[in-house]
Amino acid sequence: MRPLGIFDSGIGGLTVARAVADRMTGSPLLYFGDTAHLPYGEKSPHLIRHYASRISHHLRDEGCRAIVVACNSASSNALESVRDAVGPDIPVVDVVEPVVAHLRDRWPGGHIGVIGTRATIESGLYQRLLTSAGLEVTARATPLLASAIEEGFHQGAVSEALLAAYLGDGIFDAVDALVLGCTHYPLIADQITAHLPPSVEVVDSPAIVAEAVAALLPAETGASPDPAHRFLVSDWTDSFAHGARRFFGDAIQLEASDLWKR
Amino acid sequence: MRPLGIFDSGIGGLTVARAVADRMTGSPLLYFGDTAHLPYGEKSPHLIRHYASRISHHLRDEGCRAIVVACNSASSNALESVRDAVGPDIPVVDVVEPVVAHLRDRWPGGHIGVIGTRATIESGLYQRLLTSAGLEVTARATPLLASAIEEGFHQGAVSEALLAAYLGDGIFDAVDALVLGCTHYPLIADQITAHLPPSVEVVDSPAIVAEAVAALLPAETGASPDPAHRFLVSDWTDSFAHGARRFFGDAIQLEASDLWKR
Repeated sequence: MRPLGIFDSGIGGLTVARAVADRMTGSPLLYFGDTAHLPYGEKSPHLIRHYASRISHHLRDEGCRAIVVACNSASSNALESVRDAVGPDIPVVDVVEPVVAHLRDRWPGGHIGVIGTRATIESGLYQRLLTSAGLEVTARATPLLASAIEEGFHQGAVSEALLAAYLGDGIFDAVDALVLGCTHYPLIADQITAHLPPSVEVVDSPAIVAEAVAALLPAETGASPDPAHRFLVSDWTDSFAHGARRFFGDAIQLEASDLWKR
Repeated sequence: MRPLGIFDSGIGGLTVARAVADRMTGSPLLYFGDTAHLPYGEKSPHLIRHYASRISHHLRDEGCRAIVVACNSASSNALESVRDAVGPDIPVVDVVEPVVAHLRDRWPGGHIGVIGTRATIESGLYQRLLTSAGLEVTARATPLLASAIEEGFHQGAVSEALLAAYLGDGIFDAVDALVLGCTHYPLIADQITAHLPPSVEVVDSPAIVAEAVAALLPAETGASPDPAHRFLVSDWTDSFAHGARRFFGDAIQLEASDLWKR
């Protein structure tokens, strides 16, 4: 059975992989974390497209039947490059468009907040799509959050100080919902919620993306009760190997890929 | 006049470039910040060597008369690769060995603390060299500090919370001196000092490295009172362009290099 390809700049996209694995039971995943080049959130659009395109070629060559761009920075800057790379026969799901479609239905005419990396927010994609869907948008880049979470600072004074710095001026107090526009942020959803008025709904992007994957792909034959997922990283370190469990839930084995050394 | 080549994973090495420019007045600098691949501090030794080697080749080809490895992660993991890349005729100065030599003279038989990125501390180079010099060593990786400083969180609650997390257990309370083993850390030297007993001396690595450069290079002819420094980055973004001033002091122009696109 052909795997579902999923990629991210690192291991944060495993939050999306987890949701997809839960929703698409029986489907093997082929995950690629571009740890050699993370974080994408501080890279230029040009470079993000270059990396995303190469990884997408690789996932296509590995026989993936669909691609999930499990990275907001790549979804915001490189979606066309991914589609060009894999061609018209392989469907591509990103983490921005399904969330916008969900918000359009859930909060018609509402006011949406978005936080994400600098690359995601500066691309303006969330802002354009939400505005086109008739929603008001307030967006802010919160660049250090992803690295802090990746370093394990996700339930303490450091993430607290960061959230106070990024959200303390009440920028999102009047929104209906806040999009966590980075795959790392679900790990601190509770802390983020505590920095917002109770009226603000925090959007569960991974679950919405998993629904979009399920809606796009045909019913499967040959699904296995215990599919063999694979998790590749372009630079293997102990730190990534240990951190992966935080994002995926289960203990998983990361394999080193030589994609960038060929 | 041939320039002094200086490289780092990003713009943090500009603290070293500043000290070298001040000490070697009249010498033009050619700085290379590998912003396409930062941070090195989380990369594997293999990948750091690959990047450092390629950059060193480039600086040699640009006519540099010496190379300063202004990055602790590269100095700790890739010094031999740099020397191999530039050959025996171009002297190479790193940011670890001169500091160890200084400490051996300043604190004979003393106890030295070291903080740095994961790549720097896990390489064990500071530990081996200091131990060989007859000094006792206590080392700890403080991985998020560099990114926090790069993001501008360098005099407030975020760096305070990070320092409390990394130093709050008093690990360095008994050392004679603490090495700031990352080129970003001098920007928060005051805050670090405030987290240590008054008896602990914080080592000014950039000044020590600049002295080592001056000691190694012959007296110069043709020095200009206002040499034309150049600052290349492998990925140009607004954020780096604005951040550069924090590290170098003066406003400088970053130029985009296409080294990784050839």
